[in-house]
Amino acid sequence: MSSLKKCVECVKRHKNFLITAHVNLEGDALGSQLAFYKLLKKLGKNAVIVNDDDTPYEYGFLPQKNKIKRFKTGMKNIKFDCFAVLDCSGLSRTGKVYTINKDKKPILNIDHHISNEKFGDVNWIEPAASSCSEMIYKLYKKLRVPFDRESATMLYAGMLTDTGSFHYPNTNSFTHKAVSELLKHNLDIARIYKSVYENIPLRDMKFLSAILPGIKLEAGGKIAYFVIKRNALKNKKLSFDLSEHLLSFARSIKGVEVVLLFKENLRARGEIRINLRSQGKVDVNKIASLFGGGGHKTASGATIHGSIQTIKRKVLARIKMSLK
Amino acid sequence: MSSLKKCVECVKRHKNFLITAHVNLEGDALGSQLAFYKLLKKLGKNAVIVNDDDTPYEYGFLPQKNKIKRFKTGMKNIKFDCFAVLDCSGLSRTGKVYTINKDKKPILNIDHHISNEKFGDVNWIEPAASSCSEMIYKLYKKLRVPFDRESATMLYAGMLTDTGSFHYPNTNSFTHKAVSELLKHNLDIARIYKSVYENIPLRDMKFLSAILPGIKLEAGGKIAYFVIKRNALKNKKLSFDLSEHLLSFARSIKGVEVVLLFKENLRARGEIRINLRSQGKVDVNKIASLFGGGGHKTASGATIHGSIQTIKRKVLARIKMSLK
Repeated sequence: MSSLKKCVECVKRHKNFLITAHVNLEGDALGSQLAFYKLLKKLGKNAVIVNDDDTPYEYGFLPQKNKIKRFKTGMKNIKFDCFAVLDCSGLSRTGKVYTINKDKKPILNIDHHISNEKFGDVNWIEPAASSCSEMIYKLYKKLRVPFDRESATMLYAGMLTDTGSFHYPNTNSFTHKAVSELLKHNLDIARIYKSVYENIPLRDMKFLSAILPGIKLEAGGKIAYFVIKRNALKNKKLSFDLSEHLLSFARSIKGVEVVLLFKENLRARGEIRINLRSQGKVDVNKIASLFGGGGHKTASGATIHGSIQTIKRKVLARIKMSLK
Repeated sequence: MSSLKKCVECVKRHKNFLITAHVNLEGDALGSQLAFYKLLKKLGKNAVIVNDDDTPYEYGFLPQKNKIKRFKTGMKNIKFDCFAVLDCSGLSRTGKVYTINKDKKPILNIDHHISNEKFGDVNWIEPAASSCSEMIYKLYKKLRVPFDRESATMLYAGMLTDTGSFHYPNTNSFTHKAVSELLKHNLDIARIYKSVYENIPLRDMKFLSAILPGIKLEAGGKIAYFVIKRNALKNKKLSFDLSEHLLSFARSIKGVEVVLLFKENLRARGEIRINLRSQGKVDVNKIASLFGGGGHKTASGATIHGSIQTIKRKVLARIKMSLK
């Protein structure tokens, strides 16, 4: 039986769902879980969404976002018989939400990360899908649940953001076909784009423009990276994750193959977050996994303990090897 | 008879075509004319492409780009019985290329600009189309000429660039359906995107990151603008027009309605070039036309004589009035 079919049976079999997604919420996590929530409701099921993070303000346009509950320790009175985890390569990516499932109710794992750990009782993993939202789109089709403007907006948000506005290599013929169908529901794509990408507070933009000149190049210009130290982040109260903007700025440079961001974690001393993007020649998922992280071939991340200098040296050396 | 049908008859009726597009060549002008050229060749016709500008280096990935001839005064020995003008709202937008048609051979005008002046003997104008490339796509379908990797790449390039990677409001369900079909031909979309958008020489990026912190805001943050003086531009040898990047950076700020760039012209003292972009509430075409320029409601420009201080003051005052 195909994994999609197993997922369909799992959905049919259960009545009460708890839905969660990964921490550092973004368009695909939010869009896919809201669309899945709506699908379950249309099938007459009960569902509740719990996330370990607040919904970022740039996703304020998402319909039914007020249905999302923020995780609290001791969330006991949530009744569910299926624990649905979306867009997460591992259970720990849910933050603390997985602790709610202390009674070990069946886990439904829906994800498109190649690095997925298959932690579910039912695992529907499609690394070829552009996004988890694309998979939920397929679930609607399989279950013959028609789209409306709300579900189309949710799924569009996920596909838009996980494909970087349809230009990452994960974008395929099927993605565009799906979006073509979603756009029949009169979506306000300009508003959605503005909300997600053109909604950066001025102080964040000032911070961003102060960091940009610090870009460094290596390997004859094939690697571009930024280093952000604790001191630079302190007292900034950034309301927006600028990583994507920095990575995209670095990627705009002619000849660049791999871009990176090394960031000292504000909350945990000695902890470095690295984000990696590749133009395709270097498999950054492989590199991230050497350092205990993972993701996709062209977009990955890892959290490493150590000094930023040592980590920088090691990671750059590893990328240079891959470039040869 | 529909305009598309008239276009089809015009294509069938003629044997030798001269194809041109607008000056300041970009993806849609190049993609649509190359795809049209290829279509004619497949139909057993003769065709030649003449443009008044060189093909920008970021379009180096386009198949058959070496078929494009650069206009020269006295181009006499080109034999053609149909003068095909693509993606041009008026004949003068072809630069000097229209002067080749001194014998007044029938003009085929294929365009998607709402401001098109209908200068052709056959005018096929579709303002609802995302791009001229989308129209050439329709022509392939109508004439039942199958796509291959080359024609699909050409048309994809046009649709990608004229929709700003599928996020401008001109992007519709049909656009995505067409792209879905084109992507079946194994296109290297990452390479195409990198070539067009992520191909900025390092020195240009350094110049850009030096300008960014100089952004100014007015009208309670509803207007964002940059001023670039002659001195900043001298001896820079910029190979890339960074205006779009600056404007897009400014547009990313939360709450911004209108973004502007004031630039002293390097070649003509006392001449200021202004570029305006609006999120939709302010009609910048109206404002630009007050200063002798024009364009679209959300994207316009003007060249004004005077001091940059005076011009800045006048233009900003006019925008503030429109914001009220």
